[in-house]
Amino acid sequence: MNDSIQFLTQKICSFRDARDWRQFHSPKDLAVAITAEAGELLQHFVWKTPEQSEARVVDRKAEIAAEIADVAILLMEMAEVSGVSLGDAVAAKLALNEERYPAAKARGSNQKYNEL
Amino acid sequence: MNDSIQFLTQKICSFRDARDWRQFHSPKDLAVAITAEAGELLQHFVWKTPEQSEARVVDRKAEIAAEIADVAILLMEMAEVSGVSLGDAVAAKLALNEERYPAAKARGSNQKYNEL
Amino acid sequence: MNDSIQFLTQKICSFRDARDWRQFHSPKDLAVAITAEAGELLQHFVWKTPEQSEARVVDRKAEIAAEIADVAILLMEMAEVSGVSLGDAVAAKLALNEERYPAAKARGSNQKYNEL
Amino acid sequence: MNDSIQFLTQKICSFRDARDWRQFHSPKDLAVAITAEAGELLQHFVWKTPEQSEARVVDRKAEIAAEIADVAILLMEMAEVSGVSLGDAVAAKLALNEERYPAAKARGSNQKYNEL
Repeated sequence: MNDSIQFLTQKICSFRDARDWRQFHSPKDLAVAITAEAGELLQHFVWKTPEQSEARVVDRKAEIAAEIADVAILLMEMAEVSGVSLGDAVAAKLALNEERYPAAKARGSNQKYNEL
Repeated sequence: MNDSIQFLTQKICSFRDARDWRQFHSPKDLAVAITAEAGELLQHFVWKTPEQSEARVVDRKAEIAAEIADVAILLMEMAEVSGVSLGDAVAAKLALNEERYPAAKARGSNQKYNEL
Repeated sequence: MNDSIQFLTQKICSFRDARDWRQFHSPKDLAVAITAEAGELLQHFVWKTPEQSEARVVDRKAEIAAEIADVAILLMEMAEVSGVSLGDAVAAKLALNEERYPAAKARGSNQKYNEL
Repeated sequence: MNDSIQFLTQKICSFRDARDWRQFHSPKDLAVAITAEAGELLQHFVWKTPEQSEARVVDRKAEIAAEIADVAILLMEMAEVSGVSLGDAVAAKLALNEERYPAAKARGSNQKYNEL
């Protein structure tokens, strides 16, 4: 399977353009849709304990996979509309996180980098 | 650049495991972080018109790229923790969207598939 | 102190109208702002355990109060713009919840009503 | 009708305590539920123009009223759990907004106070 972000982004944008949807998909509208879909994913875990959430992703795997995919598709389009290479942006952020959270200092802690 | 989702997911999970963070990264906690980061992305567009949002992604490209990357990184980890292949899930959802939104019927409309 | 929702809603809408902001405050834009502010509230608890969150609201009480107030102000305006009496809507929902979650059945359970 | 925030908060907390739900309702879990419900409200407006959203709140008034009420109920409980008087917090924020957004300067502008 070809799971390159660039390849998937092209498929997503072809789908959009074949329907003439760019007019509705402003950066704002994409951010709105991303947040609304993230909210649907979050719905699965409302009032659940972290432990119960581990079971939930097993029991409802197909639904949760679909929610994750919804967010991912919109996010790839958001990057395209913003002129951002998502692969590069992810790589850059991972490099920054390496600096912010040195393994020796951050191990076993759930503090934010500016509180470590 | 290698922008395969599987490759990036491995980097993300190695980073997490080197810090012993899986204990904090339950599916629920990942969904919470995804939604909170989506909210940061959305902040850029509060009260803005769709047209103003097109200018915003130009003026604040680096910040917005970083917000998109934050969501993407968490989403790839969420998929991993849920036992989901994100590439496959995206491909499956795109195929479903092709069925739900036939180009001839959906062109130029912002209605949901169940309202088309 | 006068903490009636109707009284506070009038103050909020007077503030808005004195600035001629109704033009920017469509129902959609209010829902966007509500979600973005809810995201800021949620930020306080990312990666935290439920127990740590009990301490957080003590340590950061003023900040958290301000975030809660931001959501509340927008929500009261959202109700006004939607022609909804928020007090009535809350009372109606509480009555519905009494039906959906009979105390005898729901006690000590974190299941949703349709899963009880 | 009694629409005082304090009165409604007492009803909400009595409902919760009759079901022994405080154990599930940590500040974090309340923030999660608030954000998830805000996301449901936002769902009504995904891909819609601001103008279409004005029609939506007329056409779907009952549903939207219920979503707004869901957020409001959780927000009042969040304040209680955080030891915050929501009425006071709202009044304090309105006073701050008066300072941040002087009517003469903010009239007709959708800029944030720090960008005015």
